[in-house]
Amino acid sequence: MAVARVTRLTASSPTSWQNAVQEGINRASKTLRGLTGLEVVSQKAKIVNGKISEYRVTMDVTFVLEG
Amino acid sequence: MAVARVTRLTASSPTSWQNAVQEGINRASKTLRGLTGLEVVSQKAKIVNGKISEYRVTMDVTFVLEG
Amino acid sequence: MAVARVTRLTASSPTSWQNAVQEGINRASKTLRGLTGLEVVSQKAKIVNGKISEYRVTMDVTFVLEG
Amino acid sequence: MAVARVTRLTASSPTSWQNAVQEGINRASKTLRGLTGLEVVSQKAKIVNGKISEYRVTMDVTFVLEG
Amino acid sequence: MAVARVTRLTASSPTSWQNAVQEGINRASKTLRGLTGLEVVSQKAKIVNGKISEYRVTMDVTFVLEG
Amino acid sequence: MAVARVTRLTASSPTSWQNAVQEGINRASKTLRGLTGLEVVSQKAKIVNGKISEYRVTMDVTFVLEG
Amino acid sequence: MAVARVTRLTASSPTSWQNAVQEGINRASKTLRGLTGLEVVSQKAKIVNGKISEYRVTMDVTFVLEG
Amino acid sequence: MAVARVTRLTASSPTSWQNAVQEGINRASKTLRGLTGLEVVSQKAKIVNGKISEYRVTMDVTFVLEG
Amino acid sequence: MAVARVTRLTASSPTSWQNAVQEGINRASKTLRGLTGLEVVSQKAKIVNGKISEYRVTMDVTFVLEG
Amino acid sequence: MAVARVTRLTASSPTSWQNAVQEGINRASKTLRGLTGLEVVSQKAKIVNGKISEYRVTMDVTFVLEG
Amino acid sequence: MAVARVTRLTASSPTSWQNAVQEGINRASKTLRGLTGLEVVSQKAKIVNGKISEYRVTMDVTFVLEG
Amino acid sequence: MAVARVTRLTASSPTSWQNAVQEGINRASKTLRGLTGLEVVSQKAKIVNGKISEYRVTMDVTFVLEG
Repeated sequence: MAVARVTRLTASSPTSWQNAVQEGINRASKTLRGLTGLEVVSQKAKIVNGKISEYRVTMDVTFVLEG
Repeated sequence: MAVARVTRLTASSPTSWQNAVQEGINRASKTLRGLTGLEVVSQKAKIVNGKISEYRVTMDVTFVLEG
Repeated sequence: MAVARVTRLTASSPTSWQNAVQEGINRASKTLRGLTGLEVVSQKAKIVNGKISEYRVTMDVTFVLEG
Repeated sequence: MAVARVTRLTASSPTSWQNAVQEGINRASKTLRGLTGLEVVSQKAKIVNGKISEYRVTMDVTFVLEG
Repeated sequence: MAVARVTRLTASSPTSWQNAVQEGINRASKTLRGLTGLEVVSQKAKIVNGKISEYRVTMDVTFVLEG
Repeated sequence: MAVARVTRLTASSPTSWQNAVQEGINRASKTLRGLTGLEVVSQKAKIVNGKISEYRVTMDVTFVLEG
Repeated sequence: MAVARVTRLTASSPTSWQNAVQEGINRASKTLRGLTGLEVVSQKAKIVNGKISEYRVTMDVTFVLEG
Repeated sequence: MAVARVTRLTASSPTSWQNAVQEGINRASKTLRGLTGLEVVSQKAKIVNGKISEYRVTMDVTFVLEG
Repeated sequence: MAVARVTRLTASSPTSWQNAVQEGINRASKTLRGLTGLEVVSQKAKIVNGKISEYRVTMDVTFVLEG
Repeated sequence: MAVARVTRLTASSPTSWQNAVQEGINRASKTLRGLTGLEVVSQKAKIVNGKISEYRVTMDVTFVLEG
Repeated sequence: MAVARVTRLTASSPTSWQNAVQEGINRASKTLRGLTGLEVVSQKAKIVNGKISEYRVTMDVTFVLEG
Repeated sequence: MAVARVTRLTASSPTSWQNAVQEGINRASKTLRGLTGLEVVSQKAKIVNGKISEYRVTMDVTFVLEG
């Protein structure tokens, strides 16, 4: 196992927490190379007019440092 | 941001934790006005005959205090 | 309530955390009689080529001790 | 399981922590219908002249929401 | 010590966290009789254009139950 | 000190948490040899008609591994 | 409220955790003046031949500093 | 760095938490030589007639041991 | 809500913890675009000759990821 | 990843915590097949006559369930 | 004290946790200037054929921000 | 078991965390009689020029109170 770095992200989705996680990973993989894993830290939601309008997730994402 | 109150709820669903959260919010919105958000505190399940019979969630729900 | 024991399991699924929980319960019910409930302890995922390849869950499973 | 609410109470007794819990439940059951359970959160005591004068408990009390 | 209840509040202020706490207590004392104490749970802030625009506090407020 | 194992148990009693702990140890000592200690993890209770009907305890029990 | 100091003690009793707490306070009040309160930190027990032989408690004790 | 000891103090002030910390340090420096730092552990307040009458802080104070 | 990143900073001030937070945000806004919020993680202080010489704060700062 | 189980062990060594961990793994591998990993939970030591006589470790050990 | 940033790293070594920490710092110092300290967050190990094959550490590393 | 007191110490060493623990115990045993055990609370290190210059440990030390 090489040396890896862990960074915390928040992301959201109108449909589910699992989808919010995928949104966050899609965005992270544009900038960070070597993503190997994630851990969910918190699951929140925004409520508008008595309905959940947004699923929000905080997660720790791990990526291997090259070189 | 006005002053808001946070209350803890538990709810359940036979199909999923996400559905249990929605059940809880549906019930809360009958009594509490001004719901703005929630955070999942725990995800449990009841098991009967080796199968999950009920998904149970505990969550902290935030609602704005009027006046 | 009889005396019960709590054991920690990890399980995984290519599709979702909820499915990983079900995989773990399916396996546990082969060996452990008297399963009554579970609590999710952590939700992680393995990432390959910028995509989630495996949803991993750690959970505490409760089963009643006979006799 | 219906939707339930969790509220935090503190109570005290001159004789024991277990009695303090019962005092709190007695008072809570005057106002809250549908009490189903409790969890002890902390056990403290007040000391006067080198003796425990009051056992104090903080607990989370669960009650089912009707309707 | 009578039986008391603990409720969680969030409040905010444009000037300081200590002022946010006072805002929350001012609002709470309109509705809740018998307030005896509080504990700060978290201190957050909103940032706009690189400046703190709002100090936000979450606190647990204790009030004695009558009767 | 030999190598020891720690396992989590839940037990209950109609009279007290301390009695629930003893119930759990009585049951555990039928199956596990070499019990050396325990630590209380949580103290809960079931409430029926405004009265505590069952004291429930979760505890970590340590037993020495032979050989 | 004057400035107070908090110190951690462990104590034990052959009969109960509550008695162990009282043992600890009895010993502490020989050396420390101005004891005002305590909080239970952990409740453990020693087991010999399948029976609890000693109830052990860890607690934080507060005493006011004079002058 | 020499060997240091960490002790927990509580202190209070009618004006602010920061002032309560200073009160505690003033008192501690009468008795303890070699104070090097502190960490805030909790921020509480006493409320009388709907107003904060006392800001209370708990802090861990570090002091170097001589010799 | 776009995808955001959370990073941990420490900062200090000779006058107050609140000022230390502002120092940290001032420095962070030179390098990080899109700062939206912060949460205080710890409040420490350095003591010299029995006086607080430096207020130190650790905080989690959130900033939105562009694109 | 197959379904795995996590069990807590304590072990000791007269020379170091790292050696205590190896002692625990040596003993566990006699009974448990499929060990894949461990996490250190606590590091304690016994002191006799002012010297450390025993390094004690608590760890969570993971092993894959067959079939 | 200037403003500093804290980042989380994981590293590994075939020989010891302390060596894994040094591996992580060696790698970090290639990219990050101004490293001032670290704190160990977790100590894990990988086990192959009943032997520890890799010591893994997670740590928070602090480095001063220039300018 | 007699009544015991727990105090927190920090100590350091240029060579290892385990050595830092021994340094702390050596110093503590000059002043405190009846040391029986310790628990490691945190492991930190100071870094100078990209190298670890000092291993720092915080630990809770237990000593029996006489009389």
